Amino acid sequence: MTAADVALRIPTFDDVQDARRRIVGQAHRTPVLTSRTADAATGARLFFKAENLQRGGAFKFRGAYNAIAAMQESGQKRGVVAFSSGNHAQAIAYAARLQGVAATIVMPKDAPEMKVAATRGYGADVVFYDRYSEDRAEISARLASERGAVLIPPFDHPEVIAGQGTVALELIEEVGELDLLVTPLGGGGLLAGCALSARARSPGARIIGVEPEAGNDGQQSLRKGEIVQIPVPKSIADGALTNHVGQHNFPILKRDVAEIVTVSDEQLVETMRFFAERMKIIVEPTGCLAAAAVLQGVLACGGQRVGIVLSGGNVDLTTFAALLS
Amino acid sequence: MTAADVALRIPTFDDVQDARRRIVGQAHRTPVLTSRTADAATGARLFFKAENLQRGGAFKFRGAYNAIAAMQESGQKRGVVAFSSGNHAQAIAYAARLQGVAATIVMPKDAPEMKVAATRGYGADVVFYDRYSEDRAEISARLASERGAVLIPPFDHPEVIAGQGTVALELIEEVGELDLLVTPLGGGGLLAGCALSARARSPGARIIGVEPEAGNDGQQSLRKGEIVQIPVPKSIADGALTNHVGQHNFPILKRDVAEIVTVSDEQLVETMRFFAERMKIIVEPTGCLAAAAVLQGVLACGGQRVGIVLSGGNVDLTTFAALLS
Repeated sequence: MTAADVALRIPTFDDVQDARRRIVGQAHRTPVLTSRTADAATGARLFFKAENLQRGGAFKFRGAYNAIAAMQESGQKRGVVAFSSGNHAQAIAYAARLQGVAATIVMPKDAPEMKVAATRGYGADVVFYDRYSEDRAEISARLASERGAVLIPPFDHPEVIAGQGTVALELIEEVGELDLLVTPLGGGGLLAGCALSARARSPGARIIGVEPEAGNDGQQSLRKGEIVQIPVPKSIADGALTNHVGQHNFPILKRDVAEIVTVSDEQLVETMRFFAERMKIIVEPTGCLAAAAVLQGVLACGGQRVGIVLSGGNVDLTTFAALLS
Repeated sequence: MTAADVALRIPTFDDVQDARRRIVGQAHRTPVLTSRTADAATGARLFFKAENLQRGGAFKFRGAYNAIAAMQESGQKRGVVAFSSGNHAQAIAYAARLQGVAATIVMPKDAPEMKVAATRGYGADVVFYDRYSEDRAEISARLASERGAVLIPPFDHPEVIAGQGTVALELIEEVGELDLLVTPLGGGGLLAGCALSARARSPGARIIGVEPEAGNDGQQSLRKGEIVQIPVPKSIADGALTNHVGQHNFPILKRDVAEIVTVSDEQLVETMRFFAERMKIIVEPTGCLAAAAVLQGVLACGGQRVGIVLSGGNVDLTTFAALLS
């Protein structure tokens, strides 16, 4: 998949509103959770948008459902192909089944077992690749071409970005305007989509993306003003192991995002523990990125109203227990 | 603590409404979660009231806060004493601190470490007893008398029952009338309080309590028409190891509850696993009682709208991991 395969079209807030109309009644309107303990520790008022409680266990369902729903019927009949480090794959498989569309999913062979099982459980055909030696985009493009199917990339796609933007739209509608909006950053779909909503509905909010320390390509890209490609990073944040942001989202990130910060794997584990022990929710390492930046003191947010996206909860229970032991 | 120490007054739905006014802005209005997977498996429409996401990690905060808030100022100045298998203790400690009231908590010496630590963390004085050889009620009554404090029992108290009733009140307000309302049953405070709300706001609903198989004193009591006392049961449902229901709630249970069913520890573990893997929430064994009856097929509920109370999430992560391994 190269950007040339999809005509470059930078989505706008109108696309987010269209996405919302398509996903209503399909995606969960996830709860916004609060914690006095976390508020007291940070001196801020924190609003956690719990996308780990989304259908399929991650925000990815929104973009996936929207991208398929926005397709022409002729495209839907051809079926879809998707690649991702996990949650997008599951989400496309799930959204495709709900809409009666065939799906082929290209996944890294070291993807969490639970994600592979869930993807197959949705009736998708799973094809594996080696994330350290093979190019999933090439494999996916070849498969799409062979099967006559439509490739839906995990983040470099206007309808995917627009779907993810409904996360921040719901959050701001529920709690009002924010001073800070903090989201995980992998390929940039969630951050860009949320930026569209925040710019429209909470124009004073500073928008922050959070990457794993091991893979700060987004931070480098924003500093350099162009998309920087890095070697595939290694981090427990397996949903953010992208090596470059997308051409459909980078212009939005450049325009709307104030800052990109990074957190360590240790900070992610401490944050997972906090959510499990104090808030009784399971958040996968990638899903903890934004919260870790706030709770572990990477971002100063005293006195502010802070929206934090918990992006997903798809972690094997064995891995979960091992990380927290 | 014998019933004679509190004048017997059976609470009504008016008390639940008073409780709600007292706890608004203090207790979380917890989310109602749904799962298509669970709906598909049961053929029902299930609404999970997630009290594991309540402040202090369990519904107990509601009754505790209400009981202290309803006290005269002179009583509040004397401080409070509470005993419980864990969540009530934490809740009283927490609610007392918020209201500037001193608290002494009597806990079993085998209570989960995390509950003891949390209780002390709220500034309470913790006194231990042996749940298999000592009478916590006697110890608590003695302590209350020695310290001139007011004893707030975990379930046999009108304001505690009324506070717990706000769980079902919120649930029914949010999702509308139900065909079935299912709650865990330990001492009967939650079940009785919820019954008051259901009878007032969803009069057609059948109200069901769920106990651990090992300790079916409630089931026996309902069948016999009087409170039956059993030896202290052993189950992983450590919040439901009561050996008799309360005099303040039994008249309500007798009048309003259609049936009491039991589930095994294995069924509780399977249910915990379902919540962790599919719904990304941590529910303690006791908190899984009602859901286990529905999800493991103990209760037939096909075609029905079913409210299910997930009562708490306070389980040591080590215990949690061990149970699910």
